[in-house]
Amino acid sequence: MRHAFVSMKIGIIGLGLIGGSMAIDLKRKGFAEEIIGVEADPVNAAAAEKIGLVDRIADFQECVDSSDMVILAVPVGAAVRLLPKVLDRFAETACDGRTEKVVMDVCSTKEHLARSVRYHPMRRNYVASHPMAGTEYSGPWAAMPGLYDGHACIICDSEESSPKAVRLVERLYEVLNMRTIYMNSSNHDVHTAYVSHISHVTSFALALTVLDKEKDEKHIFDLASGGFSSTVRLAKSSPDMWTPILSQNRDNVLHVMDTYIDKMNAFRQAIADGDEDAVRRLIEDANRIRRIIR
Amino acid sequence: MRHAFVSMKIGIIGLGLIGGSMAIDLKRKGFAEEIIGVEADPVNAAAAEKIGLVDRIADFQECVDSSDMVILAVPVGAAVRLLPKVLDRFAETACDGRTEKVVMDVCSTKEHLARSVRYHPMRRNYVASHPMAGTEYSGPWAAMPGLYDGHACIICDSEESSPKAVRLVERLYEVLNMRTIYMNSSNHDVHTAYVSHISHVTSFALALTVLDKEKDEKHIFDLASGGFSSTVRLAKSSPDMWTPILSQNRDNVLHVMDTYIDKMNAFRQAIADGDEDAVRRLIEDANRIRRIIR
Repeated sequence: MRHAFVSMKIGIIGLGLIGGSMAIDLKRKGFAEEIIGVEADPVNAAAAEKIGLVDRIADFQECVDSSDMVILAVPVGAAVRLLPKVLDRFAETACDGRTEKVVMDVCSTKEHLARSVRYHPMRRNYVASHPMAGTEYSGPWAAMPGLYDGHACIICDSEESSPKAVRLVERLYEVLNMRTIYMNSSNHDVHTAYVSHISHVTSFALALTVLDKEKDEKHIFDLASGGFSSTVRLAKSSPDMWTPILSQNRDNVLHVMDTYIDKMNAFRQAIADGDEDAVRRLIEDANRIRRIIR
Repeated sequence: MRHAFVSMKIGIIGLGLIGGSMAIDLKRKGFAEEIIGVEADPVNAAAAEKIGLVDRIADFQECVDSSDMVILAVPVGAAVRLLPKVLDRFAETACDGRTEKVVMDVCSTKEHLARSVRYHPMRRNYVASHPMAGTEYSGPWAAMPGLYDGHACIICDSEESSPKAVRLVERLYEVLNMRTIYMNSSNHDVHTAYVSHISHVTSFALALTVLDKEKDEKHIFDLASGGFSSTVRLAKSSPDMWTPILSQNRDNVLHVMDTYIDKMNAFRQAIADGDEDAVRRLIEDANRIRRIIR
């Protein structure tokens, strides 16, 4: 499907799994005429160019100046520093204080980012978004076509952005075949802590436990069934991405971790008491997830 | 591949995911000439016959009497009651106290079962085994061809079984294309607690947490990415299967749960302290699982 916004120049800052996969599909589906990439890591930058994720690599200012639309696809710690700089540059290069340029981010936590530009004069040129898709791999070589296809995308605080900017970002996600949901930043961070962030923490803790208890890696390899592999999969996720997420969403994550630890302790008590009825009830309660998750 | 042991009659007690999937492949690959099924639940029994998992349904005694080999594929609580009964019946129908018949189980915990027949006069006709494969679904309609293909299988305490019986079970697993590992029952239960049972408990606790915190099921559905779905997948597992596993492997499971709760608390503390270096180190430590699990 070719797109109404032809000939757009898209700048992507951060050419890892998320930015790289977006680059592939935006180019392939004709939304982007040219993709200009910025990547702080020189090895990743060279790889992104070699693989053909981007048409060219540029520095930050050249990318922002040459692009109609800028996508911030860096870990959220870096995004909080870079987003105001993008809007500053929009302001410096604007005509009569106005520009049609749009910047969007794709980060997994939203409140800190929202706060970082709340009073910025170019705030309305920024659209906060979070495409809910990914794999446990990272770097430009992890980028793949179709990563976003069929998943949900959250657009946050859309009333803070100009309708034209929101519409452009909505079209971008339509092109990626994502379902769009609207939410404010604060609710976003609560709900993603409940549904997404906690499952990464439990997976990290599972990997740490198994690596600690099972000293013989051969046994882990031999005894890992599909069940263990899928439960521990997220423990391969990047520390660069997840350290700032857990830090920026600290209060919500701690709150849901406390509930999780309570549930583990309830399970532990039922098993320790030899109370098979209680264990069965807990499992049956957990089974209710069947109704919701395929 | 046709098999050397042609014309075998195989009795399968328990026609759920595990027994049913075994029935499909043993028949398809020519290891079984006839499959005689026993199933306590009348709906499941009718379904197994209708789907064609078995050639016929029989009662326990008729199945044991008509089969060259009996596979116990019931939850481990029931297996502990039924295994001595199978060996009793072997004894009652033996010629001069001897029979070529073999019974094997496929349960996920092994010590209680081993103890239940330790001094049985027909002990050498029993082979303890645990094929490490499964899905989160249960019942005869969950049975599928190829479930076991390429996975590991543990044979326990093989020195307690007659070499001929062990060889037959080894051939059965060769036919299913499984890699065979040997271990005693006690080590089996330690290592499966470390690698398999804990991941079910963490998944049950995750489902309980998300269902508790996120009252709006629509949000869970919308926000569940592939990551959450894979981490919570095992929480769909059957209480009939998992209640007795957690009960029979109580001490090992509690031991590994305690380590897990310690790791969660360490993670919680690092996040609560705002100590990003500590969070990063924990994630990097967890990432070591990459080396072991594809």
